[in-house]
Amino acid sequence: MSLDAKHWFIEIPTPDGSTLALKVTRKLHEEQTEFQKIEVFETTGFGNLMVIDDIIMLTARDNYLYHEMMAHPALFTHPAPKRVLIIGGGDCGTLREVLRHPHLEKVQQVDIDAGVTRASEKFFPELCENNTDPRAELHFADGIKWVKEAEPGSYDLIVVDSTDPIGPAVGLFSEPFFRDCHRALAPHGMVVQQSESPLLNMQILTDMHKAMGGAGFHDVQTLHFPQPVYPSGWWTCTMTCKDHDFDGFREEDSRNRPFATRYYSPEVHHGALALPPFMVEQGLTGNRRNK
Amino acid sequence: MSLDAKHWFIEIPTPDGSTLALKVTRKLHEEQTEFQKIEVFETTGFGNLMVIDDIIMLTARDNYLYHEMMAHPALFTHPAPKRVLIIGGGDCGTLREVLRHPHLEKVQQVDIDAGVTRASEKFFPELCENNTDPRAELHFADGIKWVKEAEPGSYDLIVVDSTDPIGPAVGLFSEPFFRDCHRALAPHGMVVQQSESPLLNMQILTDMHKAMGGAGFHDVQTLHFPQPVYPSGWWTCTMTCKDHDFDGFREEDSRNRPFATRYYSPEVHHGALALPPFMVEQGLTGNRRNK
Repeated sequence: MSLDAKHWFIEIPTPDGSTLALKVTRKLHEEQTEFQKIEVFETTGFGNLMVIDDIIMLTARDNYLYHEMMAHPALFTHPAPKRVLIIGGGDCGTLREVLRHPHLEKVQQVDIDAGVTRASEKFFPELCENNTDPRAELHFADGIKWVKEAEPGSYDLIVVDSTDPIGPAVGLFSEPFFRDCHRALAPHGMVVQQSESPLLNMQILTDMHKAMGGAGFHDVQTLHFPQPVYPSGWWTCTMTCKDHDFDGFREEDSRNRPFATRYYSPEVHHGALALPPFMVEQGLTGNRRNK
Repeated sequence: MSLDAKHWFIEIPTPDGSTLALKVTRKLHEEQTEFQKIEVFETTGFGNLMVIDDIIMLTARDNYLYHEMMAHPALFTHPAPKRVLIIGGGDCGTLREVLRHPHLEKVQQVDIDAGVTRASEKFFPELCENNTDPRAELHFADGIKWVKEAEPGSYDLIVVDSTDPIGPAVGLFSEPFFRDCHRALAPHGMVVQQSESPLLNMQILTDMHKAMGGAGFHDVQTLHFPQPVYPSGWWTCTMTCKDHDFDGFREEDSRNRPFATRYYSPEVHHGALALPPFMVEQGLTGNRRNK
């Protein structure tokens, strides 16, 4: 069969020759910002869809998977996080999940493109519901420069919620960036970063582990989870710790979390750390107690 | 963008308006059997691709996820399986994984369409490498009728490796079929069945739990895992036990399994049973100790 480009949004294919298409009823928004092309579509089955430079960013239906997994495992792993920096994340979905943690004092979000946040406020208002939280600061600036100039030891957790490592996001996958993160983190500080598909992007994953280690971080863990509208429908985030080995997470706090989640739970957290043998064979580490 | 139907295999869209496309270099096989249309394509990035009635069945690259998860969790949950029946599964990938368990005495596979197995032998020989195992019996017959006529108590595990619940597979998702399975199983007997996407097919999942319970089965557990070329890239299988509550699995045997796996491990097995809150809220059960 063939797909009519008028009724389908078809993503730019991966180098592996796969692509997802979603049926759309109309285009709600199109904008070329200084940095990228932002589009929003209404789909028949996935709610609103945000696309940047022809790559799917999120849909209303399934973004909770990614956003919960970018926020909660890292925040329940750090012993006592207070100050969080989000690099990227302009749609504010990760920010919303991060702010559910009541003990945080300050959450800064630094996305290079205000256009993403403006589009999200309009077409994904549910993701922006915590933007008025007094602990939240939204900045529109270059995240790489922001981290380079940050006060040493000023953050407990840096969340890198970026696009794929092409275009403006390339620098966010590099050792110099991780060195700046390392310096900007307080003792026990952590980075968590989206790290692409275990099926399609193993090189990016292993390179990230190396770059984090090379930048002086002490330990690295990758977590895997479903993310239907991203290539292969299977995604990862990678956490790294400035000066300690990972040793489990605050499981009781996770179990007693004072907010609802749709995907995340302490058992799902354990499961996400259970890397399949083919990932372990590539030198990736999840829970070190797994063999 | 649009996709050229000559260079892309595009699956029939889901009712939710999503579809996966894979880039193909050529069609290797096309056949209309008595039951269905079978096609095999060569893809650029996923190896050979088998399609039945325009629905993706498997690719060489990622079928290990599904086949390992259809075989190993159930076989390591049953206390001492000896006699296994596979309904469907004509590509022989599940059969291959099942036969890796050395203590099995007999594995019968009953697929209605010999054409699937003939195509798999030719284009997916790696999946058929265990077909000559003396414990294996390949039958081409109606699986529903086979189970109805089976000697009571003659199997320890029935694996239902079917297509979606449309066409010839509808009956495999029904309470009368499960009643026949219940009768055909020995004490401690189990069924494991593919049960579609947690994102897209919740009704099928909850109906299956109800039908298994209605047929007299004692306990039901769903496991979730990635399966990139199936709709949403996220899939499940559902296990049910004739006369006992599930209580963990043979974890030491799983850890000491005398064969290599790419996705399955005891930790991944635990993770697959950790159902996310939105599935638990639908009344589905994974590991009952999870809350």
